[in-house]
Amino acid sequence: MKQLLSSWESACASSGVLRFVDANLRGIGQVMFQDNPLTGALFLIAIAWGSYAAGVPQVAAGGVVAVVVATLTAQWLHVDRASLRAGLYGYNGVLVGLALTTFIAPGPLLWAYVVLGAAVSVVAMLGTANAVKPWGVSALTFPFVLTTWLLLLATYGFSGLAGTALPAANVVIPFESVAATRIGVGDFVQGVLLSISQVFLKGSGVAALLLLAGLAVNSLAATAFALGGAILAVIGAHLLGAESDLITGGLLGFSPVLTAIALGTVFHRPGMRVAAYAALGTVFTVVAQAALNVALTPLAIPALTAPFVLVSWIFLLPRQCFDAVAADQADS
Amino acid sequence: MKQLLSSWESACASSGVLRFVDANLRGIGQVMFQDNPLTGALFLIAIAWGSYAAGVPQVAAGGVVAVVVATLTAQWLHVDRASLRAGLYGYNGVLVGLALTTFIAPGPLLWAYVVLGAAVSVVAMLGTANAVKPWGVSALTFPFVLTTWLLLLATYGFSGLAGTALPAANVVIPFESVAATRIGVGDFVQGVLLSISQVFLKGSGVAALLLLAGLAVNSLAATAFALGGAILAVIGAHLLGAESDLITGGLLGFSPVLTAIALGTVFHRPGMRVAAYAALGTVFTVVAQAALNVALTPLAIPALTAPFVLVSWIFLLPRQCFDAVAADQADS
Amino acid sequence: MKQLLSSWESACASSGVLRFVDANLRGIGQVMFQDNPLTGALFLIAIAWGSYAAGVPQVAAGGVVAVVVATLTAQWLHVDRASLRAGLYGYNGVLVGLALTTFIAPGPLLWAYVVLGAAVSVVAMLGTANAVKPWGVSALTFPFVLTTWLLLLATYGFSGLAGTALPAANVVIPFESVAATRIGVGDFVQGVLLSISQVFLKGSGVAALLLLAGLAVNSLAATAFALGGAILAVIGAHLLGAESDLITGGLLGFSPVLTAIALGTVFHRPGMRVAAYAALGTVFTVVAQAALNVALTPLAIPALTAPFVLVSWIFLLPRQCFDAVAADQADS
Repeated sequence: MKQLLSSWESACASSGVLRFVDANLRGIGQVMFQDNPLTGALFLIAIAWGSYAAGVPQVAAGGVVAVVVATLTAQWLHVDRASLRAGLYGYNGVLVGLALTTFIAPGPLLWAYVVLGAAVSVVAMLGTANAVKPWGVSALTFPFVLTTWLLLLATYGFSGLAGTALPAANVVIPFESVAATRIGVGDFVQGVLLSISQVFLKGSGVAALLLLAGLAVNSLAATAFALGGAILAVIGAHLLGAESDLITGGLLGFSPVLTAIALGTVFHRPGMRVAAYAALGTVFTVVAQAALNVALTPLAIPALTAPFVLVSWIFLLPRQCFDAVAADQADS
Repeated sequence: MKQLLSSWESACASSGVLRFVDANLRGIGQVMFQDNPLTGALFLIAIAWGSYAAGVPQVAAGGVVAVVVATLTAQWLHVDRASLRAGLYGYNGVLVGLALTTFIAPGPLLWAYVVLGAAVSVVAMLGTANAVKPWGVSALTFPFVLTTWLLLLATYGFSGLAGTALPAANVVIPFESVAATRIGVGDFVQGVLLSISQVFLKGSGVAALLLLAGLAVNSLAATAFALGGAILAVIGAHLLGAESDLITGGLLGFSPVLTAIALGTVFHRPGMRVAAYAALGTVFTVVAQAALNVALTPLAIPALTAPFVLVSWIFLLPRQCFDAVAADQADS
Repeated sequence: MKQLLSSWESACASSGVLRFVDANLRGIGQVMFQDNPLTGALFLIAIAWGSYAAGVPQVAAGGVVAVVVATLTAQWLHVDRASLRAGLYGYNGVLVGLALTTFIAPGPLLWAYVVLGAAVSVVAMLGTANAVKPWGVSALTFPFVLTTWLLLLATYGFSGLAGTALPAANVVIPFESVAATRIGVGDFVQGVLLSISQVFLKGSGVAALLLLAGLAVNSLAATAFALGGAILAVIGAHLLGAESDLITGGLLGFSPVLTAIALGTVFHRPGMRVAAYAALGTVFTVVAQAALNVALTPLAIPALTAPFVLVSWIFLLPRQCFDAVAADQADS
């Protein structure tokens, strides 16, 4: 694996085109904090498979177009080269592309929207990174959430763009389970896997396994925390009495998965105390996911990864309580 | 009084258990900015009385459990000892405990929720304090508001937790008073007292008198501004034509009471100009309370002390306009 | 023109009353970033004409009362003299006055509300300026938006204040155009002009021409970007399929006009790359305007200039990507 990577890197050193491809692959990998082109390639296959299996190939195309537009926009804006090559200006773009093509009906305006959203996601990334710099935290996927929320909300005012998969606006009412349901082993495994694949807005077990493989080639710790976060989220959501379909569909677990990776492996030096802290944050992300689902009910838009961003910021701000990883480790 | 305090403090010096009790009592006192265990004890009696009189003893228990969990969490997170002993990691916890047990039906999951909320309130306190440090303002009760809002919103997605006292979701419509009502002396006095007791989510005149006594043993200025803030809020709300039941129930006055204490006595050196500034902020907090009540109508959650936090931050940020109190005074 | 200005300035030097008038006129000019009393005077005539033509003279009176109260409040708060004289504590006030008298039915409490709102807008301006200082961006019209949103939301809780022109609360549903409408030349010109006059909440072509004249006496670049922003907004909104009445009424264009001026002429050294960046921001402001209109539908309040503030902050935060104008140019 290491050999494959180093020969790829020497190929990139002599080719501008390969360097561009490399930056985009790393951008896809950075959705789960992995600065590794092989991880990005496996993630891309997972996206492609998930889109193909669900009969929505335009979603994979949207992700690719968006990450390319985002990288080009970043070049035009003269961002710092190291961050650009590490894919830090691409991961919000790919998510914008996936989300817009997932929630909006296909058509020429959709693609104009994808290009606009991907370009703005870079501006929002630069802006957010500057805004949170005094606090010593990372922009996470806030630029993706902000850009996509605005673009999705606006579709309700534009007849040229129609939401196909957007939730309908509803009045907030308590969820009453029809009966106390027990969750079976099959449902449990499905809930765990789909919690991982829904990070890329896909409900596919195969995609989840490809994503785990992509994590594993770069970081076993990240793989373990992704799985652990998904398991904790499924159990927590079930104990609190969340809707079974949401749990098995992974829709309450994808934000907790990201929180677990971020708190457990990216920004803190791993250890038992950090693991307990990450577990607390992961469980609270399940609460935040349910809360934001409710709060956005009248607005008819999805929460995206906002619960992850919100809870991770809350839990990353108290930096004095834990040893931070060294800066060069945080990048790798 | 001073003698009582100093003998308590010397007892605390030789006993870890008493020091722990002391930090928790100060935490209860810090809800109204008072770093004094006697104040905390009187506040606790007020909470207990108010809960008992309203037939909801679990609310007082929730407050106690939450403040203890918060203090233990703060110890686990190695927070700075001075702030811990001054109760600064407890006041959000006690409010989380009171709010969750007030708004959610009793049951085993409620207590898991109280423990989770109290623990997260400490993380949120550390995070908020770091976030607002560049601006030179205090975290106020923002950690309580944020944590509780998320926990309450999420109950609508969990069948295991049922809101009993939560407002129903409604469409925003203008309030039309049935007739121009005059407010009598009895209503006026009740509105003023309950504006004070509702700081701890209690509608009880006796509790209000105990709270005023708790303030008085530590700061006559705070007592005066609490009373003045309540009077101004009741008059202002009445003149603007707010619903009489809200006014006499103290539900438009508890945030203004906190604003009055904060702007008038905690962060600025008292004086006529500061008093006028605090009065402006107090009146605007009545507006903000009504505004947030309206804004949260579709979400079916209460505003809690968010109006106080919002207006006090707005009014505390322009630090150059007033002399700040010396740091050691701000703690006392 | 220069002679007129310099004789006015020497008259101001010897008269406190004229200096006070000068600060208020500059405050009106600063709504569109122009620190020039002649610009302010032309803007004031535009406001007066627009209010008179629409049969709502109290709106012009509200703007004047509010800017005077704001300037007096700023003096009372001992703000720095240079900013005060440049009108930086007045522009939010004038907008608060125009908005409150536009959306709320006349009556004595309305005027108390205007005075309260104007005074608080100064506190909010001082607070916002301090809050955003670490990020190197400007407060823009955020103090106006925040203050006015709270005051308007609160009217739904007060029987003494009735919204006359506030939108009704509605469920979010997609906008379906009755038929694909083509926009004629007359509609196009009207949309462009009213996009400019709606910056001051006026739907008047004559007012728009007066505003353009006011811009032209101080900055031809600002005039060009205002017009260009309006044209881009009208075309963009039409292509996306927005409601024709909103486009021709200028209601999707006033925020983009402000974004275009801010990004194109105020904070960046002009040039082709900056113009392209400003165009991207202007188009995205159309999206943000539609998005916030949708998001505020359940709350029954207008978006005001929030889309401009939000998008301009996002686009101004990445300061490293463009040369900033020198500080003294930014003031002029």
